[in-house]
Amino acid sequence: MRKTIALLALCSAAASARADEGMWTYNGFPKAQVERKYGVKIDDAWLDHVRLSSARLAQGCSASFVSPNGLVLTNHHCVEDCLQDLSSARKDFIAEGFHAKTGVEEVKCPVLEVNQLVEITDVTARVQKATAGLEGQKFGDALKAETGRIETACQTSPALRCNVVTLFHGGRYDLYRYRRYQDVRMVFAPEFAIAFFGGDPDNFMFPRFSLDMALLRVYDDGKPLQNKDFLAWNPAGPKEGDVVFVSGHPGGTDRQLTMAELEYQRDVSLPERIAAFSELRGAVTQFQSRGAEQKRLSNSLLFGVENSLKVYKGRREAMVDRAFYGQKVASEEAFRKKLAADPKNGPVALRAFAAIQEATDLHRNVRADVTFIAGTPGRMGEYWSMWSSPAFLTDYFPIARALVRGADERTLPDSRRLPEFAEASLPELTQHLFSTAPIDPEFETFKLTWSLTRMREVLGPDHPFTKKVLGNDSPGEVARRLVSGTRLGDLSVRKQLWEGGKAAVDASQDPMIAFARAVDPDSRAVRKMYEDEIESVVHKGSEAIAQARFAVEGASGYPDATFTLRLSFGTVQGWTEGKKVVPPFTTLGGAFARHTGREPFALPRSWLEAKPRLALDTKFNLVATTDIIGGNSGSPMVDRDGRIVGLVFDGNIWSLAGNYGFDAKLNRTVAVDTAAMTHVLDKIYGAERILGELLPGKKPQAAR
Amino acid sequence: MRKTIALLALCSAAASARADEGMWTYNGFPKAQVERKYGVKIDDAWLDHVRLSSARLAQGCSASFVSPNGLVLTNHHCVEDCLQDLSSARKDFIAEGFHAKTGVEEVKCPVLEVNQLVEITDVTARVQKATAGLEGQKFGDALKAETGRIETACQTSPALRCNVVTLFHGGRYDLYRYRRYQDVRMVFAPEFAIAFFGGDPDNFMFPRFSLDMALLRVYDDGKPLQNKDFLAWNPAGPKEGDVVFVSGHPGGTDRQLTMAELEYQRDVSLPERIAAFSELRGAVTQFQSRGAEQKRLSNSLLFGVENSLKVYKGRREAMVDRAFYGQKVASEEAFRKKLAADPKNGPVALRAFAAIQEATDLHRNVRADVTFIAGTPGRMGEYWSMWSSPAFLTDYFPIARALVRGADERTLPDSRRLPEFAEASLPELTQHLFSTAPIDPEFETFKLTWSLTRMREVLGPDHPFTKKVLGNDSPGEVARRLVSGTRLGDLSVRKQLWEGGKAAVDASQDPMIAFARAVDPDSRAVRKMYEDEIESVVHKGSEAIAQARFAVEGASGYPDATFTLRLSFGTVQGWTEGKKVVPPFTTLGGAFARHTGREPFALPRSWLEAKPRLALDTKFNLVATTDIIGGNSGSPMVDRDGRIVGLVFDGNIWSLAGNYGFDAKLNRTVAVDTAAMTHVLDKIYGAERILGELLPGKKPQAAR
Repeated sequence: MRKTIALLALCSAAASARADEGMWTYNGFPKAQVERKYGVKIDDAWLDHVRLSSARLAQGCSASFVSPNGLVLTNHHCVEDCLQDLSSARKDFIAEGFHAKTGVEEVKCPVLEVNQLVEITDVTARVQKATAGLEGQKFGDALKAETGRIETACQTSPALRCNVVTLFHGGRYDLYRYRRYQDVRMVFAPEFAIAFFGGDPDNFMFPRFSLDMALLRVYDDGKPLQNKDFLAWNPAGPKEGDVVFVSGHPGGTDRQLTMAELEYQRDVSLPERIAAFSELRGAVTQFQSRGAEQKRLSNSLLFGVENSLKVYKGRREAMVDRAFYGQKVASEEAFRKKLAADPKNGPVALRAFAAIQEATDLHRNVRADVTFIAGTPGRMGEYWSMWSSPAFLTDYFPIARALVRGADERTLPDSRRLPEFAEASLPELTQHLFSTAPIDPEFETFKLTWSLTRMREVLGPDHPFTKKVLGNDSPGEVARRLVSGTRLGDLSVRKQLWEGGKAAVDASQDPMIAFARAVDPDSRAVRKMYEDEIESVVHKGSEAIAQARFAVEGASGYPDATFTLRLSFGTVQGWTEGKKVVPPFTTLGGAFARHTGREPFALPRSWLEAKPRLALDTKFNLVATTDIIGGNSGSPMVDRDGRIVGLVFDGNIWSLAGNYGFDAKLNRTVAVDTAAMTHVLDKIYGAERILGELLPGKKPQAAR
Repeated sequence: MRKTIALLALCSAAASARADEGMWTYNGFPKAQVERKYGVKIDDAWLDHVRLSSARLAQGCSASFVSPNGLVLTNHHCVEDCLQDLSSARKDFIAEGFHAKTGVEEVKCPVLEVNQLVEITDVTARVQKATAGLEGQKFGDALKAETGRIETACQTSPALRCNVVTLFHGGRYDLYRYRRYQDVRMVFAPEFAIAFFGGDPDNFMFPRFSLDMALLRVYDDGKPLQNKDFLAWNPAGPKEGDVVFVSGHPGGTDRQLTMAELEYQRDVSLPERIAAFSELRGAVTQFQSRGAEQKRLSNSLLFGVENSLKVYKGRREAMVDRAFYGQKVASEEAFRKKLAADPKNGPVALRAFAAIQEATDLHRNVRADVTFIAGTPGRMGEYWSMWSSPAFLTDYFPIARALVRGADERTLPDSRRLPEFAEASLPELTQHLFSTAPIDPEFETFKLTWSLTRMREVLGPDHPFTKKVLGNDSPGEVARRLVSGTRLGDLSVRKQLWEGGKAAVDASQDPMIAFARAVDPDSRAVRKMYEDEIESVVHKGSEAIAQARFAVEGASGYPDATFTLRLSFGTVQGWTEGKKVVPPFTTLGGAFARHTGREPFALPRSWLEAKPRLALDTKFNLVATTDIIGGNSGSPMVDRDGRIVGLVFDGNIWSLAGNYGFDAKLNRTVAVDTAAMTHVLDKIYGAERILGELLPGKKPQAAR
């Protein structure tokens, strides 16, 4: 899987754990269950060490520290934006790979933030007290104000990042305190052709043959970070049947949503996203045919779109599976029956079900306005995605909006600002705002034209917002005018507008600034309606249902994923599909067998040349029963001794249904074996400096 | 609406009629009901006259005779393929329009067939006797053999066309005998900019401002046809509240499908088609940006795709409407309850429901193979659509397959051939096969590359068929090789291969012929599986359910649409949507108010120049409560006196749900008023010759 460019789910849920199911919080890990099932004793020291060795890429991936000098392992597809930002028409680090043979060659990524989870504090009582008895807008406002206060108090320095995390749909609130690192440099990335060997056809498939790895280095105060906790490198990789753990940041699951919300996904959001992304895929594919440079510029978008498409299609497939969906329906019905028979917990929870249904129906009716006028800039991790404004699909728009809206918001006291403009959020906001990543006018015009056309289609040509945006012009004319006229590509212009504040922004005649200014009142109004009448209602209802569930069924499960650190366990194990038995390992030799010489099945030249030097029976990719989801990309797979044995980069096709439930028979994590990484760093890439750091004092041996 | 490029539904259904609901057969028209409701007496002479004045375009539209000299009125979008076929890079009849000021300027359309329904005969007893007691493959074979025998016996000349039509899901079989005309010439078409004013954004919308008209002339033996029956032209158009009738060929409705089949549409076929068409739309839009000639070549495909997308989205919207779908579920449940209580009719019908569910589930599992390996060349009207082979989206492929498969089939006795190669089908088959329409290699390569890529995605890169088709090559390489190598663009090559028969085809080294030869065994095998195990089972089951419905509920309704001639009735009437009242007429002046100067809201120069001469309050488009669906495009709207008052070209957005049921409050037919056609033919197009033919002896007056 590639890093999710979709929305992260806002809510999580209690669930009872079966088999190797579960994305467990570190403060709720079922140590006894693991010992009972596998005879493996996990103690608090083990947990602390693995937690502190784990890392989150704030833009949406997982990672781990693998040396005491700040070396971080993650997936190639997690650093593709950085490679793109560093590339130009003359040097394409995505196609050719990147290899810093010395420390000075390590180059800073314009936008990359590494987080290390240092502390978890339960703040449930405080949050629930602040919202007690409130409804709708008042509930939402109180919730935002209280979590804002907690986060601001916690975040005593820009080097920290504090988030109040909603767990179990509001059944629990924990404060997660991270060490934040923004100086992150590129160390190593292989060629795209092997990092994503098999391309979209093989994505979410197994057997698989991908070296989806990259190495970064965290710098602190201009020097490589000296970190105590890191995962020792096990160059042998795991064996079939070995117990393994995955420590990472699953982005979101929907396992405990109400049927009203799942029906909305099945009938509205999934099919509509699939249609929109399919159209964009068709358009980008043809944009690529304009030339090599256009292809280079748009590759990352294309792969993101194709990845999301496969995810959404897999989810939709699960939702329209009569048996799977039927189970969900039956399970909610059974719970509602219990509630109906429970005069203490029942009435509130049953009213909450009804309120969520009503809010979801309202959402169905206003979804076009919410999507195209408000967008989702308020969502965690969404602000800088161009998808936060699907009507204005250009890198310029979030910049313009940050300047326009930021100018207004920064005149307000901290507690009254939109969350993404609170003081605590500014380090992340400004890192993006002042990114040196290049922006290409032709590509931006293409994207903006497409998205304006789609906005006109969905809102309709007679919608007042469409008329405001387009006037009498065509989408292409508006896009060309905005893109060719704006000077926001110039970093100094952005800095001057940010520092000049409201006076500077109000005086600006930049067409993109003027455009963002013109649409901002509409956008804010629809966002407020959405937050007050839909989001708050669903949040409050979900909280009530979660509390009733705790009361009726007990609080023994794990919460739905929320892009916070989780630990999963399982074993290295293939699976059986009808008569087909899928073994757990592939080998380097398998990649050569699959090589056709044509994209996406073309191995890079470095591999073809190195073939005689390779031990072709070296294990390459592997599958395990650990429970993961999008956002886990880059997670370390560790053995019982806490050593890294694999690098998670994907799930199999059955893992896509994992958004709604875990099927231990079929759902598999896909990882790169450390044996393969060790061998190819040595034999293909001659990465002696890196190997010396991963395996101090050892000359690597081919491990099979 | 534009002419459907989707599959025509194979089955129809009984339904009880309410309000102005109903697409009535001419031999089942509810004369008494119309007289009761509207006081309008329709007699058999009226019906015979309107039937014989109605026409079908075999490629998927409706039309009518409007003069005694073979003049035929239909929609611009129904003749767009012809205009495209007649155009070239130097002369674009779609953009510029077409106007034959004299008879000699009337130019033959390469592929256009007009049918006039001359006789209907009930053959139910004969067909049902032939299939009595048979199941699965034997049922399907017997059905095909018997209908084939009936058609062959009926079709005593190539100038006739005979089809056994399945009505009421097999509750009734009628033999429809048509007069067939293949010499059809272009007389008049306005500029695309006004024919499709508002483009995709306004498609299926109202208020509307489109002159979606075209005039053809049927020639017989090289001279204009002399026909007794034609519709007199009423230049005043209808008034609000007038009773009107629509006589045309609705392509297909699914109002009486089982819930198993509707669920399959909701969950599988509609969302998957929407995704595929969305992707193609994105790709074609970008293909258009390559240049003016590429835009010209691909416009027709783009508009067809966009039209289908809007249809499918509207249908899906209806299917995921909780109330609408719930009604469907409740109605089937009520019928099943009646069946369960009916020992005579119940058991067979309930077993049929189960059999259809099973066949539909099987279809779900094998749908990728059915779509990409078999395609749908066996479906009526589908053979020459490039969509009959979604894996090989190029005009060359149906040609190659017709030659390869035809060479084999024509060695067999008529009764054992695939239906599309029976002697009775050859006039239509060869008209397409020997069409002079130009084929552009760049456009074909683009389409074929896209569809091969999609085939690889859906079947998977490891599917044996994918490997057979692509080998080690990329989709683009295969497409370029086939398109650049084939000589099938040369009409004489096609003729020589067709006439040379099996020996010539076997000896051919044309790469497209070789390709069609290679995939034909796979394609035939999957088609046979589909026909024997799915189609036949559904057909037999539907027949059993229809018979039980007749027995239990009586046979008073109208059958589901089947692209056969139907008559609908209703009144000219707007509608109310919440607080919004939509009046039934627009005016020519409204088009000028909507003119922005930018596509698709840019009026053609001829209109802008003529504006001072126009009576701007002339009625332009109108809506009525008549029950229509895709395929009705081009239908005449006639008044109680049998005079033409409008030209049906669309339905409103609510008409899309009409596939599943008729909502008299919202569902509206959209037509061009004869008042507007008369006025603009005079004032803008100076079409004196045509007006003289429509209104002999009169000088047209502006009618408002």
